[in-house]
Amino acid sequence: MEPSLRVETISCETHPDRYRHWKLHIEGPVATLGMDVQEDAGLRDDYQLKLNSYDLGVDIELADAIQRLRFEHPEVRVVILRSLKERIFCAGANIFMLGTSSHGFKVNFCKFTNETRLAMEDASAHSGMKFICAVNGICAGGGYELALACDQILLVDDGNAAVSLPETPLLGVLPGTGGLTRMVDKRKVRRDLADLFCSLVEGVKGKRAVEWGLVDAVYPNSKFADAVLSRATALAMMSDRPAEAKPCLLTPLEIDISENALRYRYVSITFDRVKRTGTLIVRAPDDPQPESPEAFAEMGDRAWALRAFRELDDALLRLRLNEPEIGTIILRTEGDPERVRAVDRVLAANQNDWLVREITHFMKRTLKRLDLTARSLIALIEPGSCFAGSLFELALAADRSYMLDGEAENTIALSPMNNGLLQMSNGLSRLQQRFLGTASLANDLLAEIEPFDPAEAMDAGLVTATPDELDWDDEVRLAIEARAALSPDALTGMEANLRFAGPETMETKIFGRLSAWQNWIFQRPNAVGERGALKAFGGARGRPEFDWTRT
Amino acid sequence: MEPSLRVETISCETHPDRYRHWKLHIEGPVATLGMDVQEDAGLRDDYQLKLNSYDLGVDIELADAIQRLRFEHPEVRVVILRSLKERIFCAGANIFMLGTSSHGFKVNFCKFTNETRLAMEDASAHSGMKFICAVNGICAGGGYELALACDQILLVDDGNAAVSLPETPLLGVLPGTGGLTRMVDKRKVRRDLADLFCSLVEGVKGKRAVEWGLVDAVYPNSKFADAVLSRATALAMMSDRPAEAKPCLLTPLEIDISENALRYRYVSITFDRVKRTGTLIVRAPDDPQPESPEAFAEMGDRAWALRAFRELDDALLRLRLNEPEIGTIILRTEGDPERVRAVDRVLAANQNDWLVREITHFMKRTLKRLDLTARSLIALIEPGSCFAGSLFELALAADRSYMLDGEAENTIALSPMNNGLLQMSNGLSRLQQRFLGTASLANDLLAEIEPFDPAEAMDAGLVTATPDELDWDDEVRLAIEARAALSPDALTGMEANLRFAGPETMETKIFGRLSAWQNWIFQRPNAVGERGALKAFGGARGRPEFDWTRT
Repeated sequence: MEPSLRVETISCETHPDRYRHWKLHIEGPVATLGMDVQEDAGLRDDYQLKLNSYDLGVDIELADAIQRLRFEHPEVRVVILRSLKERIFCAGANIFMLGTSSHGFKVNFCKFTNETRLAMEDASAHSGMKFICAVNGICAGGGYELALACDQILLVDDGNAAVSLPETPLLGVLPGTGGLTRMVDKRKVRRDLADLFCSLVEGVKGKRAVEWGLVDAVYPNSKFADAVLSRATALAMMSDRPAEAKPCLLTPLEIDISENALRYRYVSITFDRVKRTGTLIVRAPDDPQPESPEAFAEMGDRAWALRAFRELDDALLRLRLNEPEIGTIILRTEGDPERVRAVDRVLAANQNDWLVREITHFMKRTLKRLDLTARSLIALIEPGSCFAGSLFELALAADRSYMLDGEAENTIALSPMNNGLLQMSNGLSRLQQRFLGTASLANDLLAEIEPFDPAEAMDAGLVTATPDELDWDDEVRLAIEARAALSPDALTGMEANLRFAGPETMETKIFGRLSAWQNWIFQRPNAVGERGALKAFGGARGRPEFDWTRT
Repeated sequence: MEPSLRVETISCETHPDRYRHWKLHIEGPVATLGMDVQEDAGLRDDYQLKLNSYDLGVDIELADAIQRLRFEHPEVRVVILRSLKERIFCAGANIFMLGTSSHGFKVNFCKFTNETRLAMEDASAHSGMKFICAVNGICAGGGYELALACDQILLVDDGNAAVSLPETPLLGVLPGTGGLTRMVDKRKVRRDLADLFCSLVEGVKGKRAVEWGLVDAVYPNSKFADAVLSRATALAMMSDRPAEAKPCLLTPLEIDISENALRYRYVSITFDRVKRTGTLIVRAPDDPQPESPEAFAEMGDRAWALRAFRELDDALLRLRLNEPEIGTIILRTEGDPERVRAVDRVLAANQNDWLVREITHFMKRTLKRLDLTARSLIALIEPGSCFAGSLFELALAADRSYMLDGEAENTIALSPMNNGLLQMSNGLSRLQQRFLGTASLANDLLAEIEPFDPAEAMDAGLVTATPDELDWDDEVRLAIEARAALSPDALTGMEANLRFAGPETMETKIFGRLSAWQNWIFQRPNAVGERGALKAFGGARGRPEFDWTRT
C-alpha cells in the first residue's frame, strides 16, 4: 500500500492575537505572560486541560511569545510568568494527553517543551531578557519545570502554594522537561534533598522551599505583587536591551503545502514516502541583503538570515511532528556562496547590535534543533550548491557529507560564522567538535579564506567522501538506501551518541541523560502498560500494578 | 504467594586455575591474556559461544584476570590481549544469549562489561598497567569495544583481520559497551567517519583503519608478533610498577550463603523478600590493621580495607544479578569509627606505595559500583554505627541518609579519604558533588577533625534528616515503605539523574547517555519484538520487520 499524507498536521506558527492559553501584557521593560489554559481548547478533544495543565498547543504559544518578545519588543527586559487562575499556577503536562499519546508523540512533545525552556535560558544568557516566575499557586511537575527555567522563582506564602515534582510517585515517570537536571545542576539543590523532594507528592512550600534552594524567595500574599515587580525592576536595570529600537516584526511565513512538499521562500522540503526520505533545500539570498545593523533593522524579517532560518525551523518542526516515517533527510543548498558569506561577515562584525545578535542566536537555536532532530542527515555537495559559512553548518550537522569530485566547479567555504557564533548545545562550534582530537585544526581552517575544492575539502577533513562522477550516483544512492533500511531506533540512539562527542553541558544532559532515561521509562509497562502508572492515573483502573524487577 | 529465592545464582568470583575461556601467561613485565572461548561452556546451555563471542561468564574471568594482575603481579606492566583462535579475534557479545535474555539481565550484563572495560582504563591511568590489543583476526562489535578500552590497538594486515561495529546494521542495537562513546570521545574519531564505520557490517581493515583513527597501527603477519612485543617492551619501560614487590594474593572470600542472607567477614546483606528490601551492613575492623606499607604487604588481602571492600563488591554484584526484586537497600555500618579513620590515614599518607594505591583504587571502584547499582539506597545512622571516613562514603552515596537524634552518642566523621581519593565516575569526590553550589564547603568540612553530632551533621548538610527517638521508627519505616511502593523504572531513571549532578566524563557518558539509549532500544519492538532485529539474527525468522516510525 502506498503511504499517504496524514490529514491532521500540526503547525507551530501562531500569533498573540490567536493565543488561547496565554495573555501577554507589556508595560515598559516588563512583560507579563499570564497562563490561563482553556480546558476545552486542547490540540485533541479527548482530554481537558484542567488546572492550567498543558499540551503541545499551550507550549507552542509559549514558544511563540518568547520568540516574539525577543524580536518584536526590544524594550522588554524582564518577563514575569504567572497564572491567571486562582490558587493554581500550573499542574504540568496533561496526564491524560500523555497517557493516550503514541510513544513518538510523547518523545517529540517533550523535546519541543525542552527546547522552549532552553530558549528562555538562551534569552537570559545572551539577550539580557530575564525571567521571573511568580508562583501564585500550586506549581506541580511541568509547572515547576517551567519555573526552573526562569532566573528567579518567587513563591507566595499562603499555606496553599507549593512547588512539587510528583511525577515519580504519582505517575511512574520522570520530571523529564529538565526538572531533575536543573534542580541539581542549575539550582544546585543537594542531591538527597532533591531525592526527598521528588518523592513528596504534595511538594514543599514556604520557608523550607527557600532553605532547600527550590525557590529564591517567599512572600505573603499581601506583599507578593510588589515584591515581584520590584525584583523585575531591579533586573531590568541590569539589561542592555535597547529602550527605543525599531521592533522586528515576525510576519507569517508563506508556505505552499502540497501532498509531498513544503515550499517556503528560501527553503523547501519534499518527501519520498516510498523511500522514506526527505530532501531539504536551503537557498542562498538572490536579492540584496543588509550590510549594516541599520539595514537589518530596515529590512526586518525579510532579511535572508532571519527568514531562511525561520523557514528551516518551521520545516524541522513540521517534519518531526507530522512526518514520523521520513527517516533520512538529504540536505542540499543552492545559490551563490559569496552572498551567504557576505551576510555572515555582516552578522559576525555587528554582534553588539541587538537585532543582529537576535538573528544570530536564532540561527544557532535552529541549527541546534537540527542536531536534535532524530532523523539521519546526509549532506550532498554538488555543483551549484551553496555550503558556505552558516549554510556549511548544515553539512557539519549532517551525519555524513558527500561531495562530488568532477570536472565542474564544486566548492565549500567557511566564514566567521563557523567560528563559535553558532555553537552546539555542548558549547563547541561544529568545527571544534569535528576536530576534537586536534584543537588547533579548526582555527587553522578558519584562517583559510579561499573556498575548498573536493580534494582540499577531503584533505582538510571537512567532508566524508568525494566520489567522482562515475561513482557518485551509485555511492550516494546506496548510502541513502542502506541508511533507510536500518532500525529507526538504533539510528536514533547511534546519532544521539555520535553527534554529541566532547563535553556535556546542562543542555546536553537534559537531552542525553534525562531524556534518554525518560524515553526508556515511556516504553516500560510499569508506566505505559494497561496497569501502568500513566494509564492508571485518574482513571477507573485503580492503583497501578508494577513488575518489581529492578534493572 | 511468598517470593522465594531463585535456585540459580551467579557468582563473580573465580581464579585463573578455573578459567575456561582465557589463558593467562606472564613473562617478566608482560602478561598475555589469550582469549579462547569454549563454545559449550556458556553460563546457560541454550546458546553456543562461537567465534570467541562472550557471555557474562567470559567477562567475569576477564574482570578477575585484570584484578589479579594488579594485586598478584606487581611486576606486570603491560597486558597484551589477543585471541588464541585463528583468523578471529572476537565476535563480541553473543547474540543468541542477548536475544533470549530478560531485559534486566541484558542491562546488568552490559553494566558489568562496561565496568570491566573501565577497570582496564583505571589500571592504565592509575597503576601504570598498560593494555595492548593485538587484533589478530576479525574483531567485531564487543570485540572492538574491548580493543577500544586498551591503550593501543594493533591490527594484523592480512586481508582478513578487520575491526567493526556492526550492531546497528546487523542487530538493530547500539555498540553499547562504550563503543560509540570511546570512538568519538577517547580516540576522537571524526563523527562522520564514526557514523560511516558503524554502518559497515564488514568493518574496516588495513591502512584505512589507521587513517580513520580506529587502530594505532597495522603490521603484516610476518612482523606482527615482533611489533606487539616491541611496543609492549617500550610501554613497560614507562611504568612505575615495582619489579620485585611481594604479591598480594586475592584469596577466596568466605561467604555464608543462606536463603535470605549473605554473610562475609566484614559485610552482610539480608533480604526481606516481602518488603523487597535488603539491609547491607559493613563493619569496621575489630583487629589491628597495618600502619605502614610494609605492614599492608605483610597482611595482604586480610587487611580490612581490601577485604571489606572486596566483600562489598561481591555483595553488590550478587545483589544485581541474583536479586532483581530487592528494590531498596538500607545501608548500615557497625564498629569503632576511630579504627576506620586510622586505616584511612595510613592509606591516604602512603599513596606512593603500589599496594596502598591498588587498595585505594579498588575501594574507589567498589563505591562507583554502588553509585551505579540501580537500587534505592537509604543510609541509617544510629548509635553504634560507623559512618566515618571511607565508610561515610556509603552515606554520601546513598539517595538519602537518616541520622538518629537522641540521648545516646551518635556521630559521623570525615577522614582524608573523603578528599578526592574515592572519586565518583564524574571526577568529583562525593563531598564536592554534594556541595556543588559552594565549592569551598567540602574543603571547610574536611578541615573538621572532630566527629559531627546529629545537630552539627544536619547543620553542615551532611545528612538528610535527623529524626529524634520519638519519630525515628515511624519516619524511617514510612520512608522505606513509600520508596518500595514506587515504580522501579521511574526510580532507576530518577536515581541515574540525581546521583550524577555536575560534570560528565567519558565514563559517565557511557553509563548515562550511551547505556540509557541502549536500554531504550532494548525495550523497543524493532530490537526485541518477535520480528525484531535481535531475535531475527541468525534465526529462521528471516529479515527483521521494522516499524519505521522515527521518534
